[in-house]
Amino acid sequence: MKIQQIDHKLAELGLHLPVLPTSKGIYQRCLTIGNLVYFSGHVSVNTDGSFITGKLGADLNEEQGKAAARQCGLAILAALKEHLGSLDKVKRVVKLLGMVNATPDYQHHPVVINGCSELFASLWGPEHGVGVRSAVGMGSLPGNVAVEIEGIVEIGDW
Amino acid sequence: MKIQQIDHKLAELGLHLPVLPTSKGIYQRCLTIGNLVYFSGHVSVNTDGSFITGKLGADLNEEQGKAAARQCGLAILAALKEHLGSLDKVKRVVKLLGMVNATPDYQHHPVVINGCSELFASLWGPEHGVGVRSAVGMGSLPGNVAVEIEGIVEIGDW
Amino acid sequence: MKIQQIDHKLAELGLHLPVLPTSKGIYQRCLTIGNLVYFSGHVSVNTDGSFITGKLGADLNEEQGKAAARQCGLAILAALKEHLGSLDKVKRVVKLLGMVNATPDYQHHPVVINGCSELFASLWGPEHGVGVRSAVGMGSLPGNVAVEIEGIVEIGDW
Repeated sequence: MKIQQIDHKLAELGLHLPVLPTSKGIYQRCLTIGNLVYFSGHVSVNTDGSFITGKLGADLNEEQGKAAARQCGLAILAALKEHLGSLDKVKRVVKLLGMVNATPDYQHHPVVINGCSELFASLWGPEHGVGVRSAVGMGSLPGNVAVEIEGIVEIGDW
Repeated sequence: MKIQQIDHKLAELGLHLPVLPTSKGIYQRCLTIGNLVYFSGHVSVNTDGSFITGKLGADLNEEQGKAAARQCGLAILAALKEHLGSLDKVKRVVKLLGMVNATPDYQHHPVVINGCSELFASLWGPEHGVGVRSAVGMGSLPGNVAVEIEGIVEIGDW
Repeated sequence: MKIQQIDHKLAELGLHLPVLPTSKGIYQRCLTIGNLVYFSGHVSVNTDGSFITGKLGADLNEEQGKAAARQCGLAILAALKEHLGSLDKVKRVVKLLGMVNATPDYQHHPVVINGCSELFASLWGPEHGVGVRSAVGMGSLPGNVAVEIEGIVEIGDW
């Protein structure tokens, strides 16, 4: 039986994949086109699937925002695992669009989205875990969640 | 002469493709790369090409927002038909980025964007008509339109 | 020695590629997948790498916004040149997501983002320099920059 390397790293880091919330939205969580897996915008959820809500610049400080972005990352991992069977099929992160629920004067979106990027870098390394990225401020997000992140990963052999 | 199946379904649903508005923006409506067609952000327009405007959470209720998102979907279909010659060349919807013009406290973006997703599901079925998606709240949109949606479809044989 | 055609055009236009700012964000500026180069959200910077800040609808007028978007375009060119070695490897612009830092009532995002699109059209022509595009209003952007633009270009022979 083959060891699931990414699952093993997550366990070593003491991290747990969240329950993915059910949604009123009509979408697929992941979709494969060739060697790319597109994933839907995943929102900041606690391990039990409940939403992490609030706006950066008003309700949440930077550390709380970063933790919320990491939870988006864990939700993305849960969706990819469900879709691919194993997270070891991911070759590298291609792209993230990090969307932060923020007040009009908020300025530290990149630090917040680092919560997700640092997670992926710790799993796949600084070369394969880090792709292109935008980290930007939304006027509002579904259910007033703090962060939502969509993107693309590449699958295949290293 | 081959029957245009998607055109036929649109007629059965009593839906009409809108006149695509002219824009001050410099862009192509659609662009094909291999088997993927990328399409520009299409805004909520009435059948005559006039804008559907207003913010969710202030000017428009959920049903009006959903209808606006469906009109974005019809504008996307008009653009794809112009680009491809026939909507029957679309194999499946890959990705939508649904952008809702909303107040900072608005929370029901997924329900609004369902107006487009339900349209595509009714044309191509729940498997091929529904791809990955984000439904998020913008601070502002061009001409104060209610909804703007961009994305990717795959073309080819089923 | 081969003439760098795009560099030559930039010099003829009197344009200079900016110093790319260092960032607290964890990301790659560009990433190649097959014949596509994805690039990160690049923000409006002056030639010395300092940020062009402010909101459209409050702090900056349309011409200033357009100039800011052109500077995003020049930052994208700097990043692509660093990644590819030569801008002559770019075959065409595939996609831009133009994000404007704007007040809730701002409406002229497409004109602002034209500042980038006109630059690319002047370098690669109206067919190859112009791809699909969305031009939308963000609630906030990192460091209060005026404009941020991400996207995709295709590389290869014409």
